[in-house]
Amino acid sequence: MLTPVPLDKAYRLLNHGPVVLVSSAHGEARNVMAAAWAMPIDFSPPKVAVVVDARSYTRELIEASGEFALNIPCRQQVGSVLKAGTASGRDTNKFTHTGFSVRAGSRIAAPLIEGCVGWLECRVIDEPHIQKQYDLFVGEVVAAEADDRVFREGHWDMADDDLRTLHYLSGGTFFTTGDAITIASD
Amino acid sequence: MLTPVPLDKAYRLLNHGPVVLVSSAHGEARNVMAAAWAMPIDFSPPKVAVVVDARSYTRELIEASGEFALNIPCRQQVGSVLKAGTASGRDTNKFTHTGFSVRAGSRIAAPLIEGCVGWLECRVIDEPHIQKQYDLFVGEVVAAEADDRVFREGHWDMADDDLRTLHYLSGGTFFTTGDAITIASD
Repeated sequence: MLTPVPLDKAYRLLNHGPVVLVSSAHGEARNVMAAAWAMPIDFSPPKVAVVVDARSYTRELIEASGEFALNIPCRQQVGSVLKAGTASGRDTNKFTHTGFSVRAGSRIAAPLIEGCVGWLECRVIDEPHIQKQYDLFVGEVVAAEADDRVFREGHWDMADDDLRTLHYLSGGTFFTTGDAITIASD
Repeated sequence: MLTPVPLDKAYRLLNHGPVVLVSSAHGEARNVMAAAWAMPIDFSPPKVAVVVDARSYTRELIEASGEFALNIPCRQQVGSVLKAGTASGRDTNKFTHTGFSVRAGSRIAAPLIEGCVGWLECRVIDEPHIQKQYDLFVGEVVAAEADDRVFREGHWDMADDDLRTLHYLSGGTFFTTGDAITIASD
């Protein structure tokens, strides 16, 4: 079941550094790409930073729409995640290519990727210098949801191996998110 | 054994989103803090982005010195990593508090934390607006090393559970880096 994530807990979807799928739309055009370089940068209001290459089709759609979604995929999607990261939406219908189906977001027009375990709908905070200099986009998270099989009441619980989140290394190699350890603070 | 990591492979130490220890020094002063919000933003020359709170002692030392190191800790250090993230260097000698011992870096004055499995020595690229607005620092990686028990020839191999890297969630809970999966690209 999809469950809304309160905005002040939204950073927790991304805090452990998973790979994300960046989805975007403008008019009839839409796309999805994989990105390892995304992270939270603020708690409340929640903000994220993500690197989107200047030559990518996603970049064009984000700049035209001022919006993007970060979708957090899981282990059972790993083949499609790699495909989303290695083809370009200029040449290929990435949704056909990856097999991803989509649903509508609640606050933005970018489509959300089904089968993921977390979703962050973001509006770009315009920062022209770092966009140009570092391909770095800042977004404010305006809505967040999670799959309550793995994220409930602000906490991940990845008991099902197929639903573990992914961390990208290089060359088609990913890590899954491993065991949880909780340390009592002094 | 410590092994140098070629600069064009340095991003791979951080690509999977592990928690880092940010170490810094200025004159006789030095400090270490934990940070979940760090990521690569470029391959070559390698650059990183990291969020460092405006009120932190680390921030003061980074701004004074123009340098910081990102140290990548492992599972056997998890208790000390949490301590590094919950005390302030203004009130506490963080090295005594955490038990971390240090060694000298090769290119910068910030100390490197022993027992970690990867190290990125960074020089700040001054970006006053995003430092002030988002507490976001950009650094160029000027040297990188890894523990060759877990990172060799540009690839992680975390066969030893104690040496797995860590991903921070919240409230004293970490994930370890889990199993690797390699997908053949089409």
